[in-house]
Amino acid sequence: MAQDKRQVDAITARDVDFAQWYTDVCKKAELIDYTSVKGMFIYRPYGYALWENIQAELDRRFKATGHENVYLPVLIPESLLQKEKDHVEGFAPECAWVTVGGSEKLEDRCAIRPTSETLFCEHYANIIHSWRDLPKLYNQWCSVLRWEKTSRPFLRHREFLWQEGHTMHATAEEAREETMQMLNIYADFMENVLAMPVIKGRKTDKEKFNGAEETYTVECMMHDHKALQAGTSHYFGDGFAKAFDITFTGKDNQPHYPHQTSWGVSTRMIGGIIMTHGDDNGLVLPPRIAPTQAVVIPVAAHKPGVLEAAASLRDRLNAAGVRSKMDDSDNSPGWKFAEYEMKGVPVRVEIGPKDMEKEQCVIARRDTGEKITVALAELESAVKALLDHIHDNLYAMALKNREDNTFDIQTPEEAKAIVEGKGGFLRSKWCGSLECELAMKERAGVSSRCMPLVQSGTEGTCPVCGRKCTTDIYWGVAY
Amino acid sequence: MAQDKRQVDAITARDVDFAQWYTDVCKKAELIDYTSVKGMFIYRPYGYALWENIQAELDRRFKATGHENVYLPVLIPESLLQKEKDHVEGFAPECAWVTVGGSEKLEDRCAIRPTSETLFCEHYANIIHSWRDLPKLYNQWCSVLRWEKTSRPFLRHREFLWQEGHTMHATAEEAREETMQMLNIYADFMENVLAMPVIKGRKTDKEKFNGAEETYTVECMMHDHKALQAGTSHYFGDGFAKAFDITFTGKDNQPHYPHQTSWGVSTRMIGGIIMTHGDDNGLVLPPRIAPTQAVVIPVAAHKPGVLEAAASLRDRLNAAGVRSKMDDSDNSPGWKFAEYEMKGVPVRVEIGPKDMEKEQCVIARRDTGEKITVALAELESAVKALLDHIHDNLYAMALKNREDNTFDIQTPEEAKAIVEGKGGFLRSKWCGSLECELAMKERAGVSSRCMPLVQSGTEGTCPVCGRKCTTDIYWGVAY
Ligand SMILES: [Zn+2]
Ligand SMILES: [Zn+2]
Repeated sequence: MAQDKRQVDAITARDVDFAQWYTDVCKKAELIDYTSVKGMFIYRPYGYALWENIQAELDRRFKATGHENVYLPVLIPESLLQKEKDHVEGFAPECAWVTVGGSEKLEDRCAIRPTSETLFCEHYANIIHSWRDLPKLYNQWCSVLRWEKTSRPFLRHREFLWQEGHTMHATAEEAREETMQMLNIYADFMENVLAMPVIKGRKTDKEKFNGAEETYTVECMMHDHKALQAGTSHYFGDGFAKAFDITFTGKDNQPHYPHQTSWGVSTRMIGGIIMTHGDDNGLVLPPRIAPTQAVVIPVAAHKPGVLEAAASLRDRLNAAGVRSKMDDSDNSPGWKFAEYEMKGVPVRVEIGPKDMEKEQCVIARRDTGEKITVALAELESAVKALLDHIHDNLYAMALKNREDNTFDIQTPEEAKAIVEGKGGFLRSKWCGSLECELAMKERAGVSSRCMPLVQSGTEGTCPVCGRKCTTDIYWGVAY
Repeated sequence: MAQDKRQVDAITARDVDFAQWYTDVCKKAELIDYTSVKGMFIYRPYGYALWENIQAELDRRFKATGHENVYLPVLIPESLLQKEKDHVEGFAPECAWVTVGGSEKLEDRCAIRPTSETLFCEHYANIIHSWRDLPKLYNQWCSVLRWEKTSRPFLRHREFLWQEGHTMHATAEEAREETMQMLNIYADFMENVLAMPVIKGRKTDKEKFNGAEETYTVECMMHDHKALQAGTSHYFGDGFAKAFDITFTGKDNQPHYPHQTSWGVSTRMIGGIIMTHGDDNGLVLPPRIAPTQAVVIPVAAHKPGVLEAAASLRDRLNAAGVRSKMDDSDNSPGWKFAEYEMKGVPVRVEIGPKDMEKEQCVIARRDTGEKITVALAELESAVKALLDHIHDNLYAMALKNREDNTFDIQTPEEAKAIVEGKGGFLRSKWCGSLECELAMKERAGVSSRCMPLVQSGTEGTCPVCGRKCTTDIYWGVAY
């Protein structure tokens, strides 16, 4: 067997240095590459394929609920960005500015979009006139740019890929329903496709989106017990509509302001997948999003008929709707096993001369490493069932991690001891005051994650001020 | 029947003012909208849906030929753009420049990508080491920005959507094969999906891409007899590889430079669709790319059972794989007929009480206006056959337009008389000199379109210098 210079490099162990483990996996699973521009990354084929699968799943859900895709310009004139006060205060400090176009110095410099509320509002003012023009249910797939000081693959890029939904409705009630509908679509997608359990909740005023009335979030716990805000859905009321002078004539023949939402998820979900499911052998991909769901490895490939048998298994799996490939390169089986473990391929199918004799193959699952022998006749059903089992197991392990590492706390000091120990989500009551929220940051080093939609309804005391209150809230350290 | 304030506005007749007709169609078919930034357009849902269908068709072809999608940054440092001399000379004058990021003035200002050769080369230098790493067959779907002085919907935007393929090969021969393969994929797509006949040819040195050794093109004739360059495929040799120091160790254990291609098509194809097939009633969409292939219109919709019957036809068509919708709004049938003509929907299905009695429906085709009566039992097969007929007819009409308006010319003055009259493609021999090419521009107002891949092999004389030569070439006025 030919020697290949390339080796499957070892990666840092997860429990030794989680941050280094994460960077190793991003690089060695060939998800991402660095560039000469600080904070700008290359989405390599394997990383981009994950995003394509995410896009396809979400886009189908968006369209099934009546949304249409559009594309608006990458540049926003500063004068336009300034129309909504809270919004510009939040975003202007981290914009990249185009000041020269061709040989011409721009009078009104343009930001590369950090988000597109202002552009959508300018467009909506042009196209919304009557109640008949509502609702407008638009979504955009694009990249946005925020000039962050620090960066990290998938989690914090200066430029990242995302989708941004922007909708306009005749009534506040309809807009609120949309806000919740999209939050639920995100939650359903993350749990049933990405195998990531979520807590649905509302953000505090301090943590909400610049310019929004209410921000809702899906929060996930990573393997290291830190929090990832995986998606947000905002209710704007009619604030932007007023700032941008968007009105429509209602059925009552009177002018009204429409009510607005926006909602988005980004490639940081890929960071979430890695940090939720990955292990010391590399990436572990949730089966429903894996670019390759099953890899077929011929064993003793030089023996007569082995390659043909392996190819036939691959073809049968693809025909059954399982995304499959065969690796017939001249690398050793051991090298290949390690390589597809690193890449997180959910199922590995091995076949060699002895298996062929017995009309069977060996199937290994990535999540547990368990191997089973399966009759060739049952290949498709066995692999499909296994993919579902793997999904369920990944979800269950992530949920257990969250449940085992969520703690009820009574004081900021108790919270501090936990986050400075092994970390976790901290659950308490909250009186609703900004002072107490800031005190939790100051005294325990945690930020509020969300007020869960499912509230216990019980009474308790705020850990900071001791006042009696009923609101449940989660605190944590976030990516 | 309720009155609707919205009317189907009249559009300028095609033969009165083709440019105004074009703008009217773009706007009134709701393909595009203007913004406050000059030269930047909004792709509205109907226009973007066309692009999504184009993307799906092309992406499938790219993947079937082994290409992988990636995403590289939107910003290119000026120092990187300068590495290849011809390339930077061509693009730097029309770049938009980011000079400020956050509150920081950039030392090395960044261009918003006008095209991504330089970024791909920087990445390839990082990831190509051995002959085992080749070929690299990458493609990127993104937007690019060129600070044009004039603009026109789809044909010339400062920012437009496109795909750019960038590939690296071990040998020149392989790279040349790739260049031609992608040209052929474009040609096949345009003819068999967009119903746009193309001339495949090579660009002259004057017209080739900045930095390329050879540029190949697919040229289409629009209804007004002008030319549209609808896609290009470039062979770079190893020029960029040398400029960016990309080398690989060959099987001979020696260092070599890889050979490169790039190829791209953009949303200007949508402009091509409009100007090839549209008529005085608006857009005419080639069926294979139409977002809605058949629209079902209930006639006398208030009569019992009509809406249900119409909905059932729509559902049957969708189940048969025909993208269909029903318009059950309270607009009049006449308004709806005009609306879907404007939108270019290939097939209209009408059903009313009398049709229901006779178990039939009426089918109208957008291209000819012809109406036929079809038994309900044959709905699916009739509509599918009609969609193919419409495709064939659109293609045949476009081909006839090109053939009727292509002229062999002997002198620049002959060419001038034609382009100043009704226009057309001008075919002649060409000696190959830049002087004669420039003289054709100066004396006849035409640019070289391409040297067709299918050459007659006969000898003739250059229309400018009169020298004997064999190369066939097309001249024309281009968008
Ligand atoms: Zn308190
Ligand atoms: Zn000549």
